[in-house]
Amino acid sequence: MIPYKIYLSEDELPKQWYNVRADMKTKPAPILDPATGKPVTLEQLSGIFCTELAKQELDNDTPYIDIPGEILDFYKMYRPSPLVRAYFLEKALDTPAKIYYKFEGNNTSGSHKLNSAIAQAYYAKKQGLKGVTTETGAGQWGTALSMACAYFGLDCKVYMVKVSYEQKPFRREVMRTYGANVTPSPSDTTKVGREILAKFPGTTGSLGCAISEAVEAAVTSDGYKYVLGSVLAQVLQHQSVIGLEAMTACDKYDIKPDIIIGCAGGGSNLGGLIAPFMGRKLRGEADYRFIAVEPASCPSLTRGKYAYDFCDTGMVCPLQKMYTLGSGFMPSPNHAGGLRYHGMSSIISELYDEGLMEARSVEQTSVFDAATMFARIEGTLPAPESSHAIRVAIDEALRCKETGEEKTILFGLTGTGYFDMVAYQKYNDGEMSDYIPTDEELAKSLASLPNIG
Amino acid sequence: MIPYKIYLSEDELPKQWYNVRADMKTKPAPILDPATGKPVTLEQLSGIFCTELAKQELDNDTPYIDIPGEILDFYKMYRPSPLVRAYFLEKALDTPAKIYYKFEGNNTSGSHKLNSAIAQAYYAKKQGLKGVTTETGAGQWGTALSMACAYFGLDCKVYMVKVSYEQKPFRREVMRTYGANVTPSPSDTTKVGREILAKFPGTTGSLGCAISEAVEAAVTSDGYKYVLGSVLAQVLQHQSVIGLEAMTACDKYDIKPDIIIGCAGGGSNLGGLIAPFMGRKLRGEADYRFIAVEPASCPSLTRGKYAYDFCDTGMVCPLQKMYTLGSGFMPSPNHAGGLRYHGMSSIISELYDEGLMEARSVEQTSVFDAATMFARIEGTLPAPESSHAIRVAIDEALRCKETGEEKTILFGLTGTGYFDMVAYQKYNDGEMSDYIPTDEELAKSLASLPNIG
Repeated sequence: MIPYKIYLSEDELPKQWYNVRADMKTKPAPILDPATGKPVTLEQLSGIFCTELAKQELDNDTPYIDIPGEILDFYKMYRPSPLVRAYFLEKALDTPAKIYYKFEGNNTSGSHKLNSAIAQAYYAKKQGLKGVTTETGAGQWGTALSMACAYFGLDCKVYMVKVSYEQKPFRREVMRTYGANVTPSPSDTTKVGREILAKFPGTTGSLGCAISEAVEAAVTSDGYKYVLGSVLAQVLQHQSVIGLEAMTACDKYDIKPDIIIGCAGGGSNLGGLIAPFMGRKLRGEADYRFIAVEPASCPSLTRGKYAYDFCDTGMVCPLQKMYTLGSGFMPSPNHAGGLRYHGMSSIISELYDEGLMEARSVEQTSVFDAATMFARIEGTLPAPESSHAIRVAIDEALRCKETGEEKTILFGLTGTGYFDMVAYQKYNDGEMSDYIPTDEELAKSLASLPNIG
Repeated sequence: MIPYKIYLSEDELPKQWYNVRADMKTKPAPILDPATGKPVTLEQLSGIFCTELAKQELDNDTPYIDIPGEILDFYKMYRPSPLVRAYFLEKALDTPAKIYYKFEGNNTSGSHKLNSAIAQAYYAKKQGLKGVTTETGAGQWGTALSMACAYFGLDCKVYMVKVSYEQKPFRREVMRTYGANVTPSPSDTTKVGREILAKFPGTTGSLGCAISEAVEAAVTSDGYKYVLGSVLAQVLQHQSVIGLEAMTACDKYDIKPDIIIGCAGGGSNLGGLIAPFMGRKLRGEADYRFIAVEPASCPSLTRGKYAYDFCDTGMVCPLQKMYTLGSGFMPSPNHAGGLRYHGMSSIISELYDEGLMEARSVEQTSVFDAATMFARIEGTLPAPESSHAIRVAIDEALRCKETGEEKTILFGLTGTGYFDMVAYQKYNDGEMSDYIPTDEELAKSLASLPNIG
């Protein structure tokens, strides 16, 4: 019998990250300099990011990258994460499907974000920097980066999306406990923040705004670089530890997933989970269905456009080709959680555009239905973000019940919802609402796309 | 090399609980009926507790009790818990000591409490009850019981100490998500609550008050029994899974602890962690130093009296012989966390009284110093309760540094502090205070001890 929880031993942990771009026939489109419309150089990118991370960002060819020893040590603090067989959920659903989830929530950041935070902090330290700046939405990335910076003795400046800052005072306090400096975004501490505040008074912020502020804070301060928790190719590469561990565990127990599901905001957890499986698919060694799940309130893959766009609202960042709703898209404050980003990882975007994976959007109330059901049956109270994947995993398992198919479903449970109780309270009180942007709203924000590519 | 985290495999998990009373030469003094001063009978105790649990409570002789299959299944949802080698902390302290901790926080209740909650819910279900009532202090026990009740489809009524109810609205919300009904205590929903409110208007409550209310709610409702998260012998017995797992892991890797440390409120985690090791000591097979750590603000072992006392403020419960500050003792609301109980497990009390273990009290600020240090070095943000044990583990490791001794220290990290950020905020803002009751205050509350035993 397959155990409830599969824990790899420490010597089975991945010692290299996997870069799925190396196996992609069509590489993600290059990042462009908005001023010239030409691909950014390593030198340009190193103005924003640590040099080593800029190199990783531009490397479409190296399939495996050694994980430095100090990062491997830190990983052992909270990894391996368990691959859990959802026996209780299978029984409750009375489905012939076999359900597994890779649970990344057993660390204080409450999510998978620590996998990339520690890598980015390491390279910043190695480069002799004083500190880093970043944005955070739900607060998981900011917490993860605070932990990583505390470990390496780096200063950490976090711009936190205002709606989260207000809904999650305790997230802020965790970051402070790890020594970080946290500012609600948009703020008057940056030029771009002041401009956004003037243009959208009363805005509750977005990841796009917060990115602009954090980038400005980095490029205008000596000894600081900017780090980002999702979207980037380097982040997906660091997150490949999720998929590599999952694949090792699956292979060890002869588990063959048919469907692999992950929630998708910027795409980092999904990209990390599917990476090595996608590699096998790209190399023709195996086949899987991959499903990206996004909120109906912020549907970049299912209703966005595949085009070059700014990664941030303030249009200070380079351009990426990606599925986007337009960098001016302001997600509804009704929506809980960290999937409030207008764009999508260029890797995920390209794979999706080639038909190598699917995408589905789900509404908030049905996501919390799934979250509450999962909490009661499987014990763990999931993060709202992760619950998007749970929703679709349950839907697929129920479909198997109808058809009698014994599919094997693997999904990413990226984190816990302990800091999301304001959202759960709304749900418990019947005050949660579903918000779907109208076609007109989307057309308006898509009109802001730059004329490139 | 010993791994950072030792996870037992599922077939190494304990299949029986261990009842340390069976190996004690002097048994804990019997529970007395306050009306007659005579030992309570099984029949009397069954008026409050489920019959099977009442039997376990009175059983001083059976050393091993089979864990029912349904409980074993549930345990697999979140157990085994890891035995962690604190390599990072050892390095930071530059100590020759080897430090291990058994981490019980990787579940949604955030603590070890689930180990007994699921057992008590199981026996309630098996007895055909409609539901259970209980109290909760920091909220960990209430959350654990809510989870257990959700699993078995039982109704769950929780009386939550008012200071926690107010400081931890999100704890309340987690319980609601698991379907529990939560009332701040003291409340006007019970006779005893109304009396306490009249006598101490404006009180922020205590575990003792909340127990009285929960017991009253149980005995006055059809189909309900009362369950308790600590203090009782049955609870320590269920918690023995902590110690049994820890001992199996230690034996497997030839780890020989010299000092075993646990925080002590009612004594359940400490009693569970030390149980099998204490068994070896009692049987003369090995020797260990055991240290109970309590808050200086609620020092039942270090400044209390070993005497018969009520378990609750309302004096509706049977009498236990224990180290107590008097059932009228109202702990300072300044103190964060769940160690605010006037008494101590009768098992721990007897072992302490016989000199088989030590006790130490620590002040709040130094506890949060240790907590913050631990969070930054070992990654996990600890619960304030657990941080009492961290404080003393660090102190002992620093002593080893002075003496050059290579002691092996094992402590219980009972839970995470994600719901304790109000307390961390006070600490981060420099507004945390230390409170130590005066001798006069203690003399006053000890004057309420009944004249028995």
